[in-house]
This record gives sequence, structure tokens and C-alpha cells, in this order.
Amino acid sequence: MSGAMKDRLYLYDTTLRDGQQTQGVQFSAAEKTEIAHMLDRLGVDYIEGGWPGANPTDSDFFAQAPATRATMTAFGMTKRAGRSAGNDEVLAGVLNAGTPAVCLVGKTHPFHVREALGITLEENLENIRASVAHLVAQGREALFDAEHFFDGFAEDPDYATACLRAPLEAGARWVVLCDTNGGTLPAEVGRITAAVIAGGIPGDRLGIHTHDDTGNAVACTLAAVDAGARQIQGTLNGLGERCGNASLTSLIPTLLLKEAYRSTLDIGVAGLGELTRISRRLDEILNRAPLRAAPYVGASAFAHKAGLHASAILKNPATYEHVDPATVGNERVIPMSNQAGQSNLRARLAEAGIAVGRDDPALARILDLVKAREDAGYAYDGAQASFELLAREELGRMRHFFDVERYRVIVERRTNALGQRISVSEAVVVVGIGGARMLSVSESMDGEGHDRGPVNALWRALAKDLGPYQAAIDDMHLVDFRVRITGRGTEAATRVIIDSADGQGNRWSTVGVSPNIVDASFEALVDAIRWKLIRDGVVPA
Amino acid sequence: MSGAMKDRLYLYDTTLRDGQQTQGVQFSAAEKTEIAHMLDRLGVDYIEGGWPGANPTDSDFFAQAPATRATMTAFGMTKRAGRSAGNDEVLAGVLNAGTPAVCLVGKTHPFHVREALGITLEENLENIRASVAHLVAQGREALFDAEHFFDGFAEDPDYATACLRAPLEAGARWVVLCDTNGGTLPAEVGRITAAVIAGGIPGDRLGIHTHDDTGNAVACTLAAVDAGARQIQGTLNGLGERCGNASLTSLIPTLLLKEAYRSTLDIGVAGLGELTRISRRLDEILNRAPLRAAPYVGASAFAHKAGLHASAILKNPATYEHVDPATVGNERVIPMSNQAGQSNLRARLAEAGIAVGRDDPALARILDLVKAREDAGYAYDGAQASFELLAREELGRMRHFFDVERYRVIVERRTNALGQRISVSEAVVVVGIGGARMLSVSESMDGEGHDRGPVNALWRALAKDLGPYQAAIDDMHLVDFRVRITGRGTEAATRVIIDSADGQGNRWSTVGVSPNIVDASFEALVDAIRWKLIRDGVVPA
Repeated sequence: MSGAMKDRLYLYDTTLRDGQQTQGVQFSAAEKTEIAHMLDRLGVDYIEGGWPGANPTDSDFFAQAPATRATMTAFGMTKRAGRSAGNDEVLAGVLNAGTPAVCLVGKTHPFHVREALGITLEENLENIRASVAHLVAQGREALFDAEHFFDGFAEDPDYATACLRAPLEAGARWVVLCDTNGGTLPAEVGRITAAVIAGGIPGDRLGIHTHDDTGNAVACTLAAVDAGARQIQGTLNGLGERCGNASLTSLIPTLLLKEAYRSTLDIGVAGLGELTRISRRLDEILNRAPLRAAPYVGASAFAHKAGLHASAILKNPATYEHVDPATVGNERVIPMSNQAGQSNLRARLAEAGIAVGRDDPALARILDLVKAREDAGYAYDGAQASFELLAREELGRMRHFFDVERYRVIVERRTNALGQRISVSEAVVVVGIGGARMLSVSESMDGEGHDRGPVNALWRALAKDLGPYQAAIDDMHLVDFRVRITGRGTEAATRVIIDSADGQGNRWSTVGVSPNIVDASFEALVDAIRWKLIRDGVVPA
Repeated sequence: MSGAMKDRLYLYDTTLRDGQQTQGVQFSAAEKTEIAHMLDRLGVDYIEGGWPGANPTDSDFFAQAPATRATMTAFGMTKRAGRSAGNDEVLAGVLNAGTPAVCLVGKTHPFHVREALGITLEENLENIRASVAHLVAQGREALFDAEHFFDGFAEDPDYATACLRAPLEAGARWVVLCDTNGGTLPAEVGRITAAVIAGGIPGDRLGIHTHDDTGNAVACTLAAVDAGARQIQGTLNGLGERCGNASLTSLIPTLLLKEAYRSTLDIGVAGLGELTRISRRLDEILNRAPLRAAPYVGASAFAHKAGLHASAILKNPATYEHVDPATVGNERVIPMSNQAGQSNLRARLAEAGIAVGRDDPALARILDLVKAREDAGYAYDGAQASFELLAREELGRMRHFFDVERYRVIVERRTNALGQRISVSEAVVVVGIGGARMLSVSESMDGEGHDRGPVNALWRALAKDLGPYQAAIDDMHLVDFRVRITGRGTEAATRVIIDSADGQGNRWSTVGVSPNIVDASFEALVDAIRWKLIRDGVVPA
């Protein structure tokens, strides 16, 4: 089918502006630049970079805006009443960023014009018209975000529609229907969008901007597209004010892979196969644990835990997968847990390169062991490397590298002679390797004399002591460290999951559980080293 | 408006069955019982408790099933071909649970009948018919989950519809359209549900069961209800296989509060105001951090970070809130972050009972300090108590209770005389209180002689030493403990957030940041104690 027969759908990303309204999110200018490059690799049409003049980070970002294929867009608001567009200093700040496109938000809901602005409906229309005309006169592509449009249309459809017609007549490329409070349901979004188009606003000048306050942001966007809107606004991973914006991470694969859209719409996305990596990199920048249940890109999105599903998947993946995980750069997972049967277990071991016969009695022992340890607080779903070690032990296929006889860590904080508060950690580890007994001590100071803490001190002492294995672990480092309390009251234990990485691009997760956080960390550390030694085929000394 | 004029919509909760398919989730029988009671307080119509016979936990749960107002339902599958319903031991296991209702899943998609079962289409129909007739003959209310219904209908609408007619003719109360792979979009769910009803299946015998693989589970459910289906299946917090099931936590408030449903449907939910508490309690049972962005119940659902939104909200909450947070037991939040302006800051301080004049120069200093500390890794969005302490310091309204001169913690693991691996922690804390200097030491052993770790040891040593403040902190305990690495490379630091609670129902969060996890924990501990002393109006010694 020829692309010329399809409508062009435009993607407008606002991760760097509305996404920054997420509680707990604060991008640096450098992070914004990295994210802009990711969006460009993915292939969105517009990147809304922020509100220049509203805060120092956004101004810094635009001062050195990265060169992108996507149209870089600055966000701002329409001019205030009682002054000309040329004399509005907020609008001037937005224009000073020098972006090819500018998106201005303005009111379209009579209640807000009266309540928040305190001006007449006609004054508001004039503010919109004059602001957009000013952008166009300066040679910018102009977009108008129609704030609270659906609530406004419900109150006064004629006025709300007039607020779309004014910017279009002033030369705006797009007018965008915004469900600012996120309370409008998909059926209503579809009905009103169709009414707007029937009222004379062309669909190919119409965008949609939704929020997830009822859990329907993605569906509201699709409803508007179904009704004829041809620009969609959203964010990576659904970041955004309150419950977030419509997630482009969910929308892009649906638009590209589902027949209803694939056969009718033309979308400029080239990087679908990178989607999972981009989504997780964003979480890494934000220091958030990626949402396991996220559509398409989540670690659980193609995880088949039910025994019945898992065995059917092994016969034919189409039985329980709506799309092939590889199309979005994700992968199928057969998680290990006490829900799982032996066929799950064998499949998961096979993935790790551990072939086990169908009738091996070790399979039942491994299932029992996993169950007992998960009851005690371990979580192997998220710690595949520790699971592999446990299975290898039961199968008699583990190599024995070293024993830890004992360790001791001291953490101390005091005031030094200069009156500064300083802390220091010292670890002693005693390890047996092939008959030799090695005692080593390490402090936790980094090159600049800063204390890196007790887990770091233990890691250094361990690494120092592993003489024959040193070379294998030299390129290994700790990437992340997650701690949760598991169980309650006197049953409470601390579960530590450590993510490690090496120079070969491997990344693996191990788990330790103990009421003592240092001891739980130590267990996960030792597992991380053991997995790396196995992975590299190291032969025990 | 009279309820008699409305259609009755039934809620069917499958948290205890499909919700248990969530990766990383494993309920104990006792937890299932607690969740069943929560669902009953909320007011769902059916509770699907599990699959009796499929695993020991589910069998244990049904053996002592709690008495509920909701209809307790056991899940299973239709009998296999080549044996009678009375001789199918899997079906017998389900019936043995003795529940008033039984829901059986069966195939309706010809591809699956051939691929997964390897039987004829007519044999499959007969399995469905005979299994349902067997349930009805035993006096049970029968439900039929039509697996892969939407994919099946797309391939062969006549056969898929026959698979609904057969159980209804055999006496089933409900047939449920399941989008098992989660790939069907809302418009298609609406279209097919309408076609099924037009084909003679009554809407008041029709249920809907969706998954969130495209981020549309809630919207698909609403589309089916719009088309006439009158039972909805879902889970609390959207738990479930892969990306999860339709979230009843999102659906219930939409159905009760939004005009389109409120005026046409009658729903037996009495506990809407408890929704947020129930949602968070479930996360506590699962030891998960509640999703901040969750619709209606998330901590960010009514958080107004944008400066413009926050100032409008202060004038009139309806400007940026689609429903009143109190209706779902949630609350409005004006988070503190470097996005926020002084009006946010004043509002947040006022919430904490700290009144500050509009022109107080301390407001600017507090904003700068928050920004500087967030740059260093602190996160005040999620640690309101530490934020309050910081603001009090800047405002000159903090009370000075004690100084920590130094501490030292030793963590040791070794093998004891019996060959057992043991660990022990010992903490020494030196504190100055009103001129007195107090040195105390504490071990981390609990009543059973188990090591509770270094943070616990520090907590005990601190508590032991706070002589004049002892009574105030006696009812205080640590509820949760979250650790993340923030920053990267040599900038890496550990952020610890500690949740504390006391006997008066207060719950508060404090934050500490240091490259040293013990030191970061200690900082959060000290903040937790200081906040409690302020809260209780303790006067410094």
C-alpha cells in the first residue's frame, strides 16, 4: 500500500515541558539535551523543550539547544490583556529562545476566562489572535494549546470553537484540544472532536493533549485520532503533571503495529526497535525503577507467569502475545516463582544456557527451594543471576570459587580537628581460596577522600582479596542498589537487590536477604561476583 | 433520580486470582483473607478467590474461606474432552471448594481450539455446555470466561457467539468476554460487544475482562459497558498477568462520580471514601511502593506542581481538579520542588501548620535551599517531614533538642562454635542534651536473639540515650525504608527515605543523603525523631 494514500499523523513530544511537571522530576539542561537526542532517534515530529524564561534550566537548555531533525518548540502563554503582543515580556522571553516553532497555551473555557483571568470573553479571543499573529509575523510556526477545551466546549461550544478559529485565522499551523484536568472520558473526547471537525476546523490542523487522571489518556488520544485529529501530544513513559500525560511509549507501537492505524496513517517513527531501551534510559536518568507492568516496554509486558500460558507460549508465541516483543526491543520472560510449573522452569534455565532434561528430579527440588526462599523474602523474578546460581547448585553444576570465613565493617562518624563532620568505613574480609586463607582490609575512601560507605568498603576488600580471580572482576562495577523491607514485625527482613555491569555490556541482578542490611548487601555482592566468574568461564583455583 | 430506573452494574474482582499472576506477587492464604475483607468493605459483588486445587495457597484459602457479603467464587477450567464433567478431577477440585459461584474459563477462538487443545470445534462446545450444566446441577451460580473472545470473534464470529450461547443455554448466569492477550483496542471492544448483544446475547448476562497490554484496559472496559455489558472484571491497583488487568481502583470512581455513568448505572459500592486507603494497604501487603501517578489514589493524583496551576487551585480547586480528592479518600498536595514558586511554598507550609507572611524573605531562602539540596540528591517531594524541619530552621522556628557528637557501628559476620553463621551489630552513639553528654551502646539483637542490623542498632542506641525525650518517642516505630543510588560515578550518593509511624496514627517520611548508606540512614532517623518531638510539642531540655 502506498504511503501517499494515508493521512500523515504528527507526534508532538512534551516530555521536557509537561513531563517535567511530574512530582519528583527535575531535569538538568544536560539531561534535557540527552533526552532530545533520544526523541530524535525515535523519530517524533516536534520536541517541546520547555518554557524559556520561566526557570533557569529551561533558559540554559534553549541557549544551547541541540540540533534535531524534529522541530524544536518553545512553550509559553498568550499575552496578557492591556498590552500589545510586542510589549509582553513573558511572550518576549519565549520568542528570544529562537526556536522555529512556538506553542502558546490560552484559555477557551468561559469559567476560566472569568475566574482565573478576570477579563471579558472578547478580550481573551483578542489575546489569542494577537499573540499568534505576532509569532507568525516573526516567521515562527505557531501552535495554540486550547486549555480546558473539553470542559469549555461542554459549557459553551460556540465560544470554545471560536477560540480555535481565531488562532487558525491568525496563521497557526495547529490548534490542540487539551483535556487539562484529565477528567474527560474517551467517548466524550471522540464525540467533541468529531463535532469540532464538523464545525469547520480541519482535522489536519487539529491536535490532542490528554492526561491520565481516569486512566484513559491513551484511549482519549486514540478516540481523537479516530475522529480525525492528526497531531498527538504526549510524553515518554507517560510522565507529566498529576497522573501524567498520554504515554507516547504506549501510543507509538499501537499506531505502528495495530492494523486499524497501520493501514490508514503515515507516521515518521524510525526507531520502534529502540523503544524499550529509550524508555529504560529515561528511567535511569530519573533514577526511577522502570515500571514492570508498562505496556510494550515493561519487564513484565511479555512475562508469562501462569503455567497454562507459559506452556502454550512454548508451542506458539502468538497464543498469548498480541505483538512480537522484538518489534519494540523488548523480550519474552518466563519468570520463576512458586506459581510456575516445571515447564516454566526448564524454559527459563534454557534461556540462561542451562539445559535440563524433562524428567530431571532436580527440577522439583529447585521449585521447592525457590518457594521456600521467596517465603523468606527473596525475590527471584527480579534477580535472574541469583536464580541461576541457585539452580546450578541444585543441579550440581556450580563451580566453587571461594569461601567467606568472616567479615567486619566499622562505620564511624565524628568531628575532625577542623570541626568538620567526617565519616569513614573500614572493612576486613577473610576469604579462603583453594586452601589458602587471605585476610584483607580496605577503607571506603574514593580518590577525592570521600567516604563511599560500608558496602563499597566490603566490595573493595573482597575484590582486593580474590587474587586468582582479580582479572575477571576488574571490569565489573555496581550500577544500582535497591533496598526494601520485606515481612512485618519480628519477621521483617531487608531485601537488597544489586545491579552489576561489566565492560562487555552484561548487566545482571542479584539478591540478598537478611535483617541486617549490610549482611544482605554482602550476600548480593558475593552472588554478583560468582555469577560474573561463571559467565566468564573462570576455572576455580 | 430513582435507582429503579438504572441498570444494575456488577463488579467482579479477580485480584486474588488473575492479580496473583503479577510478576513478583505471591499472596499467602492469610493475605488473601485480608484482601477479601477489604474488597467486601469496598462493596464488590463477586470475589474470585483463586483456583482451588491448582496450588496449595489457593486450596488453603478456600478451606477457610472468609464469610463475605460478596459472592465468593472459585476459578477453574472447563472439563477436558473424552471424559464426563463428573469424572474430570480438575473440575472436581474446583467444586470441592464449595463456593456459591464457580467461573470456568474455556476456549472460543478456533485457532486455540485447534492449536492448544487439539480437538474439534464441536467437542469444545460440548465441553463448555457439559461443564456448565454440571455446575448448575450442583446448585452453583455458573460463570463462563470466554478466553480470547475478541480474537476469536474476528476469526469466526458465528463460532465465537455459539461459545457464548452454549453456556447460557446450559444455565450460566454470566458469560464474560475476555481479551486474554490484551491487544484489542477500545473501539473494537465496543464494536464487538454491541454486535454480540445485537446477535441475541443479553447485555445483563454479559461481562467484560480486559488486560492493559496497550494501556487501554480501563477504556476497553468502559467501551463494553457503553455497548451494554453489565458485569466488569478487574483487580485492585490493576494487578494481573503481564501489564495487568483493568484496574477497579480506576474504574470504580469513574463509574460512581462521572455523570455519564452515575445517572444510568446502579453499583453496589459503599466504600468509595476508603479507596485510597485500600489501594495503599494492598501495596503494603505486597511491599511495593505505591504508584504515585495512579489515577484517583496516587500520591501525585492531586499534586499541583506547575506554579500557574497551584495558584489557581488556591483560588478555586475546581479549576484544575476533575473530582474532589476527598471523595476517594485522597488529598490535595502542593509539592515542594525547585519548579515551585513562593505561593506553592506558602501553601505547603500552611498545610503543615506553619503560617508565613507573603513577603517573608525566608521564603526565597527556603526555595534556594531546597533547590541546592535537591541538586545534591535530596528529594523533598516524598519527604514532607524533612522539608518541614528545613523550613523551620530557615524561619528560625525550629527547637533544638540534641546534638550528635559522634557514632560508631560495627557489623560483623562469623561462624560460631556450633558452626552456625551469625552476624551481630553494635552501635555507640554520643549525644549532647542541654549541656549533658551521654554515651550509650546498643546491640541490634531482638527478643529472639536475631540481629536486626546496623540501622536498628543505631536507632536503639539513640532512643536509649534521649533521656528527657524518651516518653515522646516510645510509641514511634520504623515502617519502611527505601534506598536509591542518586547521581552517577564519583557524584553517586545514597538517598535513604524512612517512613515512621506512631501510636496516634501519624505517619511521616524523612530523607537522608550520603555516599555512606549508614550515615544517610542515620540522618533520616534523626530527622524522624526531631519531627516527632516537634509534632508532640515537646519542650527542649
